[in-house]
Amino acid sequence: MNMVDIIQKKKEGKALSPEEIKWFIEGYVKGDIPDYQASALLMAVCLKGMDEEETFCLTDAMRYSGDTIDLSPIKGVKVDKHSTGGVGDKTTLIVAPLAAACGVPVAKMSGRGLGFTGGTVDKLESIPGFRTSLKPEDFLSQVNNIGISVIGQTAHITPADKKLYALRDVTATVDSFGLIASSIMSKKLAAGSDAIVLDVKVGDGAFMENRHDAAALARLMVKIGNKAGRRTVAAITEMGQPLGNAVGNSIEVIEAIETLKGKGPEDITRLAVKLSGIMVYLGGKAASPEAGAAMTEKALKDGSGLAKFREFVEAQGGNPDVITDYGLFPQHSLKMELKAEESGYIHKIEARRIGLASQHTGAGRATKEDTIDLSAGIFVCKKTGDRVQKDQTLAIFYGNDSAKLKNALNEAAKAFVIEKEPAEKPELIKEIIGLNEQ
Amino acid sequence: MNMVDIIQKKKEGKALSPEEIKWFIEGYVKGDIPDYQASALLMAVCLKGMDEEETFCLTDAMRYSGDTIDLSPIKGVKVDKHSTGGVGDKTTLIVAPLAAACGVPVAKMSGRGLGFTGGTVDKLESIPGFRTSLKPEDFLSQVNNIGISVIGQTAHITPADKKLYALRDVTATVDSFGLIASSIMSKKLAAGSDAIVLDVKVGDGAFMENRHDAAALARLMVKIGNKAGRRTVAAITEMGQPLGNAVGNSIEVIEAIETLKGKGPEDITRLAVKLSGIMVYLGGKAASPEAGAAMTEKALKDGSGLAKFREFVEAQGGNPDVITDYGLFPQHSLKMELKAEESGYIHKIEARRIGLASQHTGAGRATKEDTIDLSAGIFVCKKTGDRVQKDQTLAIFYGNDSAKLKNALNEAAKAFVIEKEPAEKPELIKEIIGLNEQ
Repeated sequence: MNMVDIIQKKKEGKALSPEEIKWFIEGYVKGDIPDYQASALLMAVCLKGMDEEETFCLTDAMRYSGDTIDLSPIKGVKVDKHSTGGVGDKTTLIVAPLAAACGVPVAKMSGRGLGFTGGTVDKLESIPGFRTSLKPEDFLSQVNNIGISVIGQTAHITPADKKLYALRDVTATVDSFGLIASSIMSKKLAAGSDAIVLDVKVGDGAFMENRHDAAALARLMVKIGNKAGRRTVAAITEMGQPLGNAVGNSIEVIEAIETLKGKGPEDITRLAVKLSGIMVYLGGKAASPEAGAAMTEKALKDGSGLAKFREFVEAQGGNPDVITDYGLFPQHSLKMELKAEESGYIHKIEARRIGLASQHTGAGRATKEDTIDLSAGIFVCKKTGDRVQKDQTLAIFYGNDSAKLKNALNEAAKAFVIEKEPAEKPELIKEIIGLNEQ
Repeated sequence: MNMVDIIQKKKEGKALSPEEIKWFIEGYVKGDIPDYQASALLMAVCLKGMDEEETFCLTDAMRYSGDTIDLSPIKGVKVDKHSTGGVGDKTTLIVAPLAAACGVPVAKMSGRGLGFTGGTVDKLESIPGFRTSLKPEDFLSQVNNIGISVIGQTAHITPADKKLYALRDVTATVDSFGLIASSIMSKKLAAGSDAIVLDVKVGDGAFMENRHDAAALARLMVKIGNKAGRRTVAAITEMGQPLGNAVGNSIEVIEAIETLKGKGPEDITRLAVKLSGIMVYLGGKAASPEAGAAMTEKALKDGSGLAKFREFVEAQGGNPDVITDYGLFPQHSLKMELKAEESGYIHKIEARRIGLASQHTGAGRATKEDTIDLSAGIFVCKKTGDRVQKDQTLAIFYGNDSAKLKNALNEAAKAFVIEKEPAEKPELIKEIIGLNEQ
């Protein structure tokens, strides 16, 4: 096989064969195929597309490009959850203990963040003592013992995806449904769970900016998962404004704990119950997603979700006292407030700008090498649709560098659109895809 | 400026600004922009196209990416000639002395070949003693003295084109009109002549396989040349079968000499008179291309073209006795013949296969590092439309390696399509573009 012929074929809009896709991925990971040929192919894929069969093959080739995790030593139907990423998205920290509290084993690998805030692993590391790196046997036995573990991704999972993603990022070849879907699903399939719940965010703070695209991406991922024998369900959810109020690392963990205490923001609470309900259903512990949601809502109200979170933190070496004493989290030394310049209704809180502002506070990385200020972040006090008075606080900025906070405040100020007329709250959960597929 | 934004812009089908194109070319030549970003942009250009303005800008940026030649010390209107490349194309060796014999200075830089045969420079080097590398001042004074010089391309002309072309070759991004036109024209403009005659080949032995594409490419190059203030005319000519009979290096020089003696094949003779006639017209020595052709035909008949060729060879250190004694050329030790297996009419002599076969004899390079056997090549005895008898010789193979010659013969055998019904000769000169542009 010959890389120039493969590029030419895709350039002409023809479908690549499974052998060609496998040969490309294997050669690229080995370093036999240079980046400049890979990027030409990626651009041709972006502009000419891939059919489903090609997308399945690419997912498969990337899935097996490194180690795959065998979760069979864990009893029960393991259910994974993945978000395509948004601003203030601390959902995993809530849904994982809720599902586990309802008897569904959650053996999850999570990433570090690049961009707006840290990833789930970064957020967890704001809990003093928390270890996100466990030996495989400890990871498995922890899930068998307490039903939950969340660790960082090992270096040997889907190296093809890592290498390709880094290349896509610098060659403007990120936005292809097939490339996005195969990237996400190759990792999820390699990570070994029996069922997968996908949270596909839509809005200006997410990768998919319109609902039609988000649904198309979701449908494709659901197909890939089901084709690989993993029950897969996707929710299309709002990311036009930040999720909940907290955007950062430790402050998001605090908000997750508050939610598990039943005192969380309405939106994140509702989303967490819904998604964990689907997890409970897919895990065979409820007869329907609705019955699952009733169970997870109960776990939220009766404190069993919070208790599971405490067990989880303790098992991974974290100090469980953070649950009652937020002063144990890394502390910021500075605080600034953004005030409303006029009275009215909030029509928009651009999630993307809040995300950028969060990065400016020090809560997110611009490059892999950056260190995160775990105490930094933004507390968004108002939500879209809320009424606001002149001089009322719109958002609070936390951190340890006043220049950074000012910069963040200036960026965030542009995020709020306030008008005289009342505004509607956006629909939080727009669509569930894949429930009736199998 | 940011390369990812530029790639994204082109990916969305938008036109790049002159500043963006210049920034890209300068950064790429300097090595600031890596190959993997350049190849992604090239693929986007291939699939989304470039408008004329972008093509002009790209040509300009590449033209000035290295040295440009100042031919102003040479008196008169300097006329260059360029062929997009074909099989058996020794036209430069004939048109340059014919135009010079009619008073038009030809100060030409030519390339080495990669593929079917050597380039003009390789062919000239089959003349014992011939030097293709001259000091700039000697190059200029030779043209002032005798009206003609042909030398190899210096390393400092259009480095951007060299680097981009090498990348296009390995990323399936060669076939874009804008990229091809800007590549050719940047070199021609940097080479400094006042007017340019382009020979755009069409057929299976050429880059453009259909007449419509060849004409589109020709029109684009004519526009680029005229926009840059260089009178540019393009001829669309046949490359469905080899040009003339000889395909190789020394044997092509011999055929060129025979043509200058008035004993050349009908097609190459006619083409050379026509193209050199246009050169004479553009050089201001004739009132029309037809008047120019009458002058070059006379130069062919009265021996002044041949005399100019002798002067040219002598001036560059070559042994002019080759003109009368072909035994002075490098000699082959082996010869094989391909015979017709049946009687009939030749409907086709696939130029591409003959070119490949020529490369097999040792007359062409597969990689830049290969050495050429200057004595090797193929003499195609019949032309399309000719009648042939069973066992008549179709082609003769010359070289010094019998395995290579057998390989060449097997390839060439597939090139000949012989049928019972008479066949038409293809139209040699299909169209002239650009004569009425200024």
